[in-house]
Amino acid sequence: MEIKVLKDILGANEQIAERNRQLLDSNGVFAVNLMSSPGAGKTSLILETIKRLKGETRIGVIEGDVSSSIDAELIGKEGVPVIQINTGGECHLDANMTHRALSNLPLQDIALLFIENVGNLICTAEFALGAHRKVLISSTPEGDDKPFKYPLMFHKVDVVLVNKIDLLLHLKFDTVAYKKAVKNLNDRVEIFEVSCTTGQGIDQWLSWIQNQMRFFENLQER
Amino acid sequence: MEIKVLKDILGANEQIAERNRQLLDSNGVFAVNLMSSPGAGKTSLILETIKRLKGETRIGVIEGDVSSSIDAELIGKEGVPVIQINTGGECHLDANMTHRALSNLPLQDIALLFIENVGNLICTAEFALGAHRKVLISSTPEGDDKPFKYPLMFHKVDVVLVNKIDLLLHLKFDTVAYKKAVKNLNDRVEIFEVSCTTGQGIDQWLSWIQNQMRFFENLQER
Repeated sequence: MEIKVLKDILGANEQIAERNRQLLDSNGVFAVNLMSSPGAGKTSLILETIKRLKGETRIGVIEGDVSSSIDAELIGKEGVPVIQINTGGECHLDANMTHRALSNLPLQDIALLFIENVGNLICTAEFALGAHRKVLISSTPEGDDKPFKYPLMFHKVDVVLVNKIDLLLHLKFDTVAYKKAVKNLNDRVEIFEVSCTTGQGIDQWLSWIQNQMRFFENLQER
Repeated sequence: MEIKVLKDILGANEQIAERNRQLLDSNGVFAVNLMSSPGAGKTSLILETIKRLKGETRIGVIEGDVSSSIDAELIGKEGVPVIQINTGGECHLDANMTHRALSNLPLQDIALLFIENVGNLICTAEFALGAHRKVLISSTPEGDDKPFKYPLMFHKVDVVLVNKIDLLLHLKFDTVAYKKAVKNLNDRVEIFEVSCTTGQGIDQWLSWIQNQMRFFENLQER
């Protein structure tokens, strides 16, 4: 019974996510669903990406949090369109919340949309939002055993960003074993090692984003 | 409708949690519900506590994870009774899962029980398990803004352990502002700064645990 209710909820969510995707496509907006544990660096990565790409790419942001608007205020200072979603008690964004946020964004002025999900490695993986790509930020201080503990998340994403590699010197974190565990769960995932503090590895992330956007634009033009 | 269902679920959970509490009390087991983000140091704290108190206190552990039994295996090596709960997809333990684990532990041989909850700052705060105290581990690399983003968690716990303070030198983390934010949400909370890597601050944590246990034993003897 409980499982049936969950299936119904997820099924309804998929339908709304599909409508979100159509809305994004019709406006030429490439959207990324950004997920991580609390404090792994989602907002820092968005800020760094905005600073580096601002001149050439029109960026927009949806900020998802249980409460507060701290992140939206930080992003807003960069002069890009941003909408804060407060989920109340929910531990993830869903397609419906995303739809309401999309209705309040100037989609015609946005080419790249980041949807920063709630800080959580579990439920966020289950709910489609309609984004074109799913990206996980995994922070080195969290330890190298996370793929074993949160397999669904690692299975579902297109990219894993291993963030805070500037701290590796001070941590026990086996990068080789970690990558192997991730690839075992998902052999088509791309893994980039980055630090939003030192800027290390950010260029590879930006190249990936720009390639994906070009691919998306070519699809749209057909 | 959705809110009513949630209220019913939480109400039923509270009843089972109350029965868990009675079971713990009747066996003289003092139980701590340990919560945090993924990788903040729950298992490391339990291991450190076992190592320091093993000679004098009979410890048991319930390990909660979405999947895997990595943590239970680590704990088991210390020779203490441990039960792994795998929640499947659920992002938190509930009183019912805890009840099943309690039924499989030798409660008469345990004086101090750690219940390591699933790595999640949101739903874990909502579900009572029947434990006597709730403890949050908050890890410095997660940043000092967590009280604003996860207020319910900070509101509900008896202790906040600020872990990984050995990394403070390499991070932007304003300890004074953080503590003020925590106290604003919860003025009776106790805050300890610790490092499970260097052992710093662990003595204060052990004193707190031992004081709480003495208080509990005195209550039981009345």
